[in-house]
Parts: sequence; structure tokens; C-alpha cells
Amino acid sequence: MSGSVARKLIASHLVEGDMTPGREVGIGIDQTLTQDATGTLVMQELEALGLDRARTSVSVQYVDHNLLQADERNAEDHVYLESACRRYGIWFSKAGNGVSHPTHMQRFGVPGATMVGSDSHTCAAGSLGMLAIGVGGLEVALAIAGRPLYIRMPQIWGVRLTGRLPEWCSAKDVILEMLRRHSVKGGLNRIIEYHGPGVDTLSAMDRHVIANMGAELGATTTVFPADETVRSFLRGEQREHDFVPVVADEDASYDVTEEIDLSTIEPLIAKPSAPDNVVPVREVAGTEVSQVVVGSSANPGLRDFMMAAAVVEGRQIHEEVSFDVNPTSRQILADMTKLGGTVSLINSGARLHQTGCLGCIGMGQAPAVGQNSLRTFPRNFPGRSGTPEDSVWLCSPETAAASALAGMITDPRDAAQRFGLTYPKLQLPERSSVNTAMLTPPPEPSESSGELVKGPNISSLPDFPPLPDSVEAPVLLKVGDDVSTDEISPAGAAALPYRSNVPRLAEFTFVRIDDSYPRRAREIADSTGHFVVGGENYGQGSSREHAAITPRYLGLRAVVAKSFARIHWQNLANFGILALEFQDPSDYDDIGSGDVLAIADLTGTLPASAEITMRNVTKRQTYRLHHKLSARQVDAVLAGGQIPLLARSLA
Amino acid sequence: MSGSVARKLIASHLVEGDMTPGREVGIGIDQTLTQDATGTLVMQELEALGLDRARTSVSVQYVDHNLLQADERNAEDHVYLESACRRYGIWFSKAGNGVSHPTHMQRFGVPGATMVGSDSHTCAAGSLGMLAIGVGGLEVALAIAGRPLYIRMPQIWGVRLTGRLPEWCSAKDVILEMLRRHSVKGGLNRIIEYHGPGVDTLSAMDRHVIANMGAELGATTTVFPADETVRSFLRGEQREHDFVPVVADEDASYDVTEEIDLSTIEPLIAKPSAPDNVVPVREVAGTEVSQVVVGSSANPGLRDFMMAAAVVEGRQIHEEVSFDVNPTSRQILADMTKLGGTVSLINSGARLHQTGCLGCIGMGQAPAVGQNSLRTFPRNFPGRSGTPEDSVWLCSPETAAASALAGMITDPRDAAQRFGLTYPKLQLPERSSVNTAMLTPPPEPSESSGELVKGPNISSLPDFPPLPDSVEAPVLLKVGDDVSTDEISPAGAAALPYRSNVPRLAEFTFVRIDDSYPRRAREIADSTGHFVVGGENYGQGSSREHAAITPRYLGLRAVVAKSFARIHWQNLANFGILALEFQDPSDYDDIGSGDVLAIADLTGTLPASAEITMRNVTKRQTYRLHHKLSARQVDAVLAGGQIPLLARSLA
Repeated sequence: MSGSVARKLIASHLVEGDMTPGREVGIGIDQTLTQDATGTLVMQELEALGLDRARTSVSVQYVDHNLLQADERNAEDHVYLESACRRYGIWFSKAGNGVSHPTHMQRFGVPGATMVGSDSHTCAAGSLGMLAIGVGGLEVALAIAGRPLYIRMPQIWGVRLTGRLPEWCSAKDVILEMLRRHSVKGGLNRIIEYHGPGVDTLSAMDRHVIANMGAELGATTTVFPADETVRSFLRGEQREHDFVPVVADEDASYDVTEEIDLSTIEPLIAKPSAPDNVVPVREVAGTEVSQVVVGSSANPGLRDFMMAAAVVEGRQIHEEVSFDVNPTSRQILADMTKLGGTVSLINSGARLHQTGCLGCIGMGQAPAVGQNSLRTFPRNFPGRSGTPEDSVWLCSPETAAASALAGMITDPRDAAQRFGLTYPKLQLPERSSVNTAMLTPPPEPSESSGELVKGPNISSLPDFPPLPDSVEAPVLLKVGDDVSTDEISPAGAAALPYRSNVPRLAEFTFVRIDDSYPRRAREIADSTGHFVVGGENYGQGSSREHAAITPRYLGLRAVVAKSFARIHWQNLANFGILALEFQDPSDYDDIGSGDVLAIADLTGTLPASAEITMRNVTKRQTYRLHHKLSARQVDAVLAGGQIPLLARSLA
Repeated sequence: MSGSVARKLIASHLVEGDMTPGREVGIGIDQTLTQDATGTLVMQELEALGLDRARTSVSVQYVDHNLLQADERNAEDHVYLESACRRYGIWFSKAGNGVSHPTHMQRFGVPGATMVGSDSHTCAAGSLGMLAIGVGGLEVALAIAGRPLYIRMPQIWGVRLTGRLPEWCSAKDVILEMLRRHSVKGGLNRIIEYHGPGVDTLSAMDRHVIANMGAELGATTTVFPADETVRSFLRGEQREHDFVPVVADEDASYDVTEEIDLSTIEPLIAKPSAPDNVVPVREVAGTEVSQVVVGSSANPGLRDFMMAAAVVEGRQIHEEVSFDVNPTSRQILADMTKLGGTVSLINSGARLHQTGCLGCIGMGQAPAVGQNSLRTFPRNFPGRSGTPEDSVWLCSPETAAASALAGMITDPRDAAQRFGLTYPKLQLPERSSVNTAMLTPPPEPSESSGELVKGPNISSLPDFPPLPDSVEAPVLLKVGDDVSTDEISPAGAAALPYRSNVPRLAEFTFVRIDDSYPRRAREIADSTGHFVVGGENYGQGSSREHAAITPRYLGLRAVVAKSFARIHWQNLANFGILALEFQDPSDYDDIGSGDVLAIADLTGTLPASAEITMRNVTKRQTYRLHHKLSARQVDAVLAGGQIPLLARSLA
């Protein structure tokens, strides 16, 4: 089990633990990536940590998500983030510079380095032979503060590529084939490592496509080797000096193995509404489409846009199709314009949008109900487009452009015949239009770092005092099984603009279950706090930290449940909320809303034992509970969370 | 008083009345223009009228306003409009084709023709020697149905231009000079006719800039002659066959006269937050800016974008400025791309947005609170940007681009020195990149016209019952001078998606002035209704009918004001709301919010006399008012509006 790229990357950054799959390892982190939708909270966490200056080699804050600016709050976030970058010594990538993942790859990616990012597609940087992992905002803040990332050592899944892709097939079809084979759970607790002779046939940006959507397989991350292809990519970005080779040993072995003969791939498409609902395009050909969108971090390369442009060149897209083109970055837009691709797309009838994520994360481009939308995006979860009951399909740029011409889902191989197309032999420049003027470097450490600029809608993170030694407080809410983080802290147009404003966002806490919760929580003295009682799988769904922060802000001290969803359980610990499980699940039935519960001597008990005794003062009962916290987590919970704990050590 | 272009245009289309200023005239209408934000309502009105097929020469429905598609409603509007165009025999201009006014000028404008449009900047077509008037949607619906437009004959205001604009000054500075001299009320009940030797120095698109913002002067419309400049413009659009000369007689005379020596113009800017708050740029130079936006129907020409591109060519915009570029149309974007302007803009750091109105009508691009935004737009009413307490300035592309480079308001003549710029001598192509593939022609009358496609968010028009014989009701709101239709029924990303859904849109009525208005209105029994009291120029700005429909839906029976803006006054009559003016403006001061007002015997009085007596039941006062309704309008108001009146006559 040695010699793979993935294990080499971890071994070279290991600061704690041993690399047996399933065991906790601490990994030193070189780089961080944040985007604006999650970055504002990360910056608030840095402020709460009392950090002076980023301790990573490179940390970059991108503005690529909230670009519509329907009111003043997006622009205020941008101003705040820019000021926070100056304050903490972080690179700032302005609105309009581009989508984080491909831009990071072009400007900052370094083979052999590690990175965490507060975006699930951070793994795309694996295309350069980096170990890049998407995590929660607090993990990114801790990394910026110089702390290792702690994860359970994943299995390494070696996927050997052979052969060469046929005409009209591209990298998107490779990752769709992986999803067809393995589903959205196929990569759980695994790092996918592509190797074998087929890797040589894929450009660095092709590899980005495949690494990016490793997130859809549920993988911890994806890695490719840093080989001569990566070297020439970096040369094209005027950064050959950043190249170091990272390749697997000849005798590298893998925990799990797989093989794909690229020559057998055909154009694939994910049907609504899951990325693993994959079929050959020919099986659904002829289905009417009303929207086709090209762009996003899942197909970000110049090649992808130029391929779409070549398909529509000199032709008109179908009268009833909205053909939306989202250029990745100003660099790629400049290159596609110089090459004539922009004019070809515009003349064919494309709507050329600003550079950014846009429709991929539901920021505009929502289709009408009941109309099919084909997208080169990574995800088609129900409603993610902004349209309830949407019908979104995922495919390659080749399939997207051919379908835009035809007004129906079209296998690009058939379109070649139908529209008299020959397969485009793209001539792409060896060197990109490098222009770094929209990237603001951090000030020198000696320079004044400036003040944080906070608009009216940007709060600080609240103070989180230590857990009291004993808690005696009422059950403010008792909920059933499978309560999701969406029910705890909703997304949606009403709540989302308050993501940078914890006190305002807190007003939405649990309101989908009980809209009196925020008011009742505030009516209890802060020193008293309250309990929530839950059933099975408490906190399932989205990883949002706000589902821990906003109830904590309202006084939540402990959740007692039958079981917890993994990420939310970690977020509760990170923000100083005690997550306790019933030893006897039937005790759940005994507790009523309003009952006063009490736990004594937490300082003594928590570090000493996984078992906890809790009294029901109202019912005069006693329950046996347990916790699953590591020693590291017990320290954090007692301190009031990771932030006060670390702030104490930084001070 | 004869021989002017304006009078020739009216005389050649006169179907009723005589052309004495102030007297009602009926004008035959050749063309109509609708955009999507107002067009859905027009189509609902056509449906209510039971129209079979458009009776105009050319009617065009544009999609240029609601392009963000934050959820499914925008796309549903687009689908509905496309189906309505097929149903009623109307041209359909797809999302992405471009902003209505310049696109209409390029593709459909015909010298000598008349046009009404449900957009206040319809007057821009006066640049080609057309009589083009912005009206409410219902007037457009009636015109599509073959009915004349009834207006009071305006005065003709002859503005003689002499000389030639200096370098760094352009058409925008001319119209800003008009606003500086005459304010937003200066053009009320007037048609502005530009003549004299200076006209020859202005291109057709320069004239569009000036004609467009005639709306900001409150003018009925603006006309330029159709001369050799117009002929060569049409030649460049491959439509020279549409040219007919329309020029004033040698001895033409005007009701009002004015002269501008173009050589005395200097760069001007409208300060926040009114288009007539105009000062020389040099007086405010040095003011920090955080956003600069180029685009909109007020500066739509290829020249405007190429000028901005030439100013920033090879330079970088200021690090803290968001430089947003909104291309007018895909035709103009294709041309600016071929000429290298697009690459210059992108390389300088511009955010290149999709083609359309966007920030000009509050669809995105909202600045942060307290930050200055410079825009080449026509309007800077408070909050129109989407940001409450915004700080929006209006200027030329030259001033905008120079300020983007400097990060502060900059006179472009100074920028020339500061950045080593020489005044760009633009070489523009004589022929445009004509491409009509995004314009769907109406089906032949013999073809099947198809069904209307109505998504879940498209309502029917509410029923409007007749005006009661006497009204006794409280003043729900008292407002000051110059209240705009933006304040009555706001645009912006929150409200605009409900333009096709009157009950939902009504919840936004007057909320910028008093957010309790919708609730308080609903609390009053519908049979009682309520009054609104206004100052001067009530209902200025955008032509939106929703500013009449939504308060009417909430129970508004009468507005008593010092004076009314023309289009809104007509919309009030069309939808059965009584618009009454104080004979003694000081009576305005006597009335308080909450006072109960009463008018008796409306059925008898309104047709018999222009004078109305109104009691203030609360204050025990009596006021003398008058109305300006024609007999035709009185019938409509008593019936509850034009639609019930027509419905009754059809029954």
C-alpha cells in the first residue's frame, strides 16, 4: 500500500497519526481557497480567532458566487472580503476575475502541495498533483491559522486509464462513466487516483474536469500525477518554475482498483435529477430542450468553450433554445475572444454572461418549470437551478452545443452527420493570456494591513463562552428523526442574504419546524441556555456550519439525540455544542418539550469517560448517555468551541 | 406654427381632433414596441380584448429586462411572451438579442412612421425622424388592436443646435446640458425637436442618446429630422430601402425656442439622485468611485463602447472599482468584438455582462451602501439601483471610462493628460453585423397561431368594478413632489418577477415611501377605498402601468395632486382611478394623512364639468379641484377603466 501519488502527498505532509485507512491523520496545509458565499464566515472566524496574519504559503479569496447584486448585500460582501484579505494577508480575486477552481489551478496550483477549500469542488486541484480537499469553513480558518487538517485516512482507489477517447467524447464523459458505474456514494472515504497510459492522453484541464466532479462520487478528493503534461500546462501559465514532478512508483499499489479503456467511452448524459443518473446520449436523443448552458468549474477550459464555438460556428442555434455561455475567467474569455470563439458563439445566438459560477450554483439562469435544461455543470440536484421541479441534465460541451443547434438532445456524432460537421481539430495557443491585474496580492507583512470594512449587513461572529461545568436548562424543542440542516438553518432567498449576519440569520433557526423557537430561545437568560432533543440521524444534509452557529447563538448548549449525521456532529463539536446520544433510545420517548434537563460536572466527566448521566428534573428520571468526542474535541467543546480554544492558544 | 418635423409627423397620421396645443388629437399608429417587464401585461390585455391578430404594420416584443432568472418566473414570462407573439402576429426578440430601443432603431425604425411603446424611452426612435411615444401598456394594446393614440396636442419645442462638440464631449453631455437648463419638468407637454446645423454633426446613434433621455425632461417625445445621416445609418443596417426624408420646412416655426452651441459643451454629470442634478464633471472631480457601469439605452451605440474601450486600452482599471460593461445587443457585441474592443475591455478588468438592460432597471449590479456608482444610464432615482440610500451618478462613456481608470470622478480631458491619452479617433465600420436570427417573425396569417403558454406565475387581470357615485374615504398616504412610478411600484429584483402577477406585485406598492401602505389598504373595506394626496409632477419616470394597477387593486379610488406626470395620469384614467388637481395648490398643505375626503355625485358631475368639489370631512373644509379628462376618459373612469368599458361595449 505505498508509492501512490495520494500516499506520497499525505506522507510528505503528515504531522500526526499513521496512514492506516480509517485512522485519524493530521495533514499540514500549504494553501487555502475560499469563495465569497462561504468566505465571509471564514473571515469572521479569523477575526474571532484573533489571527494576525495567514500562516499558509498561499491563501486566496475568490469572488465568483454572489455576482448578481440584486441588492446592496453582494457588493457589501465583496468590499468586506477585500478588506479582510488586506487585513489577514490573503490574495483577493475580484468579481469578474473568474471561477475559483480553474483560476486557482492557472495562477496558484503547485504540484505536491496540499490545500483545503470551503467549496466542495476544491478537489479539482488534484489535476496538478495536489492534495486538495473541500471542507467546512472553520477547517479552512484553522488551516489559515496554521493548524493541520484532521481527517480519517481514506482508502486509495486506483483507476487505471488505457486507450484514447474517440472523437466527440471528452473528459466529461469519463467522469460521467465513473458516476454511471459507481453512483454518488461510490467514492465515500476514498481518494481516487488516476494512473496508467490513458492519463497521458488527457490535458491538465481535462484532468481538472475529472477531478472536479470526483466530488459527485463522494470522494475525499481525486489526484492525478504531476507529469510532463502538468509541466507544459504551467509553462503556458508562465509558471514552469513551480513545477515539481509527483508520480507514483512503478510498483505502486492501491486499496481498491478499477480500469477504464478510454477508447470505449461514448457520449454520456446524466438525466434529472442526480449526477449518477447516467445513460448514453443516444438513448435519450430527441428529447426537446429549451435551455443549454456551457460553463462552470466542471467544464472550465478554453478547449471546452472553443469546442462549443466550433460546433455552432456559422450556424444558428434552435429558435426556442436559450443558449447561455458562462465564461470561466477573464483570462479564458480573452483567449476565446482572440481565437474568434466569442464571435462564433455570439453570432450563433449565445447569451454571453459575465465570468463566474452563475447558474451552476443557482445564481440566475433558472429554467421554466417543465422545460429541459442541458448543462455542462457538475450537479443537477432537484431545485438547485432555482426552479422547483426543474429538469436539468449534465453533459459535455460537445453534446451541449450539438443539442443547442438541434433544439433536442443530440449525440454529437449524429450532429456531425446532420449538420455536416467534421470533428473540430482545435488549435489552442501554447501560452495563456496571463493577466494578474484582477488579483490583489496580500500586503507585505510590514505594511499597514488596514481595517475590516463591514457594511450594515455584516456582523462579527458572536462570542462563544465556555461550556458551564453543569447545565440545567429546559428542552426548547423536541424533534423527530432525520431533521436536516435545512430545517435547522434554512437556505432560500429570504435567509441566504444573511449568511454574513449571524444575529439576523438566527431569526430563521428551526422556523420550518417551530417558528416560535427563536423568540422562546431569546426569552431564556443566556446563562441558562437550552436543550434540543432529537431522533435518529439528527442534522442530515448540507454541511452548512450555520446550523450549529445560529442555535448556539440563541443559547443551545446540548443536543440529545438517538444518533447524529456525521458532518453536523462535527460542526456541533466545533462550535461548542455537546452532542449526546441515548444509550437506551426509548428514553427519547420519556422526555417532553419543556422538561428541565441537568448534567453536572462536565469538566470532570467529559475528558474521563464517554458515558454521561443526565437528570430530567421535571420528570425526576435519570438517563444514561454517551458522547463520541476525541480528546481534541472534548477540549474544544469545554472551551466553547474550536475558535475560543485556538484563540486562547494564539493569544 | 407649421412645417416642423413633429407637426408633419402628427399631421400625416391625424385621425381625430385639431392640432392646437392642449386639444386632444387621435393619431394613427404604425408600430408598437413592448419589453418583457411591461409586455406580459400587454399580452394579457390583448387576451382580454379578444384580439385576433395585430393590426399594426410592425409590432415587436423584446426580452431585455428580466434576464437574471433567479427563479423560474423570468423564463416562464419569456415562454409566455413567445407564445403570445405567435398567437397575435407579433415579432419576438429573444433574450440575448438586445435592448429594445437601439435594436428597434437598427432593425425596424422607419422615418415618418409613428410608434407607441410600453417603455418610457420609446421616444429614442425619434432619432430616425419617427414620432415615438412611451405610453402605458393598455395604449399599446389598443394600438396593436388598430386604435389611434389619444393625447393632448403638445407644444413643439424647437432646439436649434449650432457648432460642433469638443473632444471628450459627446451626445450624453448635450442631453445633460438640457437637463441642467430645464430640469425633469422642462419638457412636460412638449415635443422637443432638434434642428439647425449642429444636427449634422451628430450620428444617428448620437441622436438616439439625446432622444432617449428626452424622457428625463418629461417630454412627450423628441424628434430629429430624417436626413442623409439617417439614410446612411439605414444603409449600414442593410435597410436603405426604408429611408424616406422627413425634414422641417425652411420657414418652420416652433411654440418654444432654444439654442445650444455644441462647441460650448463640457463634460457634465448628474449627481445623486436625479437626472437633472447636473454639474460640470470638473466640479466634482476627485470623488471616489467604487463602481462604473457602461451600457443601457442611454448610451447604446457601438461608438460608446468603443470609446470606453479606447480609453482603457492597454491600461488597468483601478483596483477598487468594479467596471461593469453591459453590451446593448448581440449585433453590437459582435461588432465591438471584431473591432478588438471586447478584448481591450476584458484586459482592462471589465466585467462583461450579458446583453440587456440589467443594472439600468435595477436587475443586478446594485452597489454597496455609501459607495459612489457612475453609470452611463438615463436615470438615478433613489433606490433604482436596487440599493437603498444609493449614490448613483450619470455621465458619458468618456467620463465613465476615465473615472474607472482613476478610481475617482475624472474629467476625461484631465485623464487625457494624466494617463497620456490622445483623443481616440474611432474607425467604425460603415456596415453593422446584421444578424436577424434571434428575431422570430410573426407567423403568416394563414398559419396556425398556437396556444398561449401560461406558467404558474402568470395571472389574469383582476376585475375592476365601476367608480362609485360618491367616494368617502381616508387619505392613506400623503406624498411630496416628483414621486416617481418607481416609488409607487418599484422595479428591482424582488418585485420585477411578479410583473405578470398583480396580486403578488401589489404587496410592493408604495413600500419605498411607507411599507405599511399595502397592509393598511387591505384593512379598509374594498367598497370604501382610499385616497392618495400628491404634490407636483406626481407619477414621473417610468411608464409602468403597474403603478396604476396595483394601487387600484388595493382600493385606490382617487389621487389628488398639484400636478401629474403625463403617462401616469393617463394610466390612472385607463384603470379607473380619478386624477384630480388642486385649483389652489395651498390646499395641499391643509390635508393630513388620515383625513377623510368625500366627493359626491361623480356620475353627474364628471361628464358635466371639469370642476369638482371635495369635502375634507375631518377638517370640515371644502376644496376646489379640477380634472383634465376628455369625455372619452370620463366614460372609462366611471366604468372602472378602459377594459371594463370595452368589455361592456363588446357584450
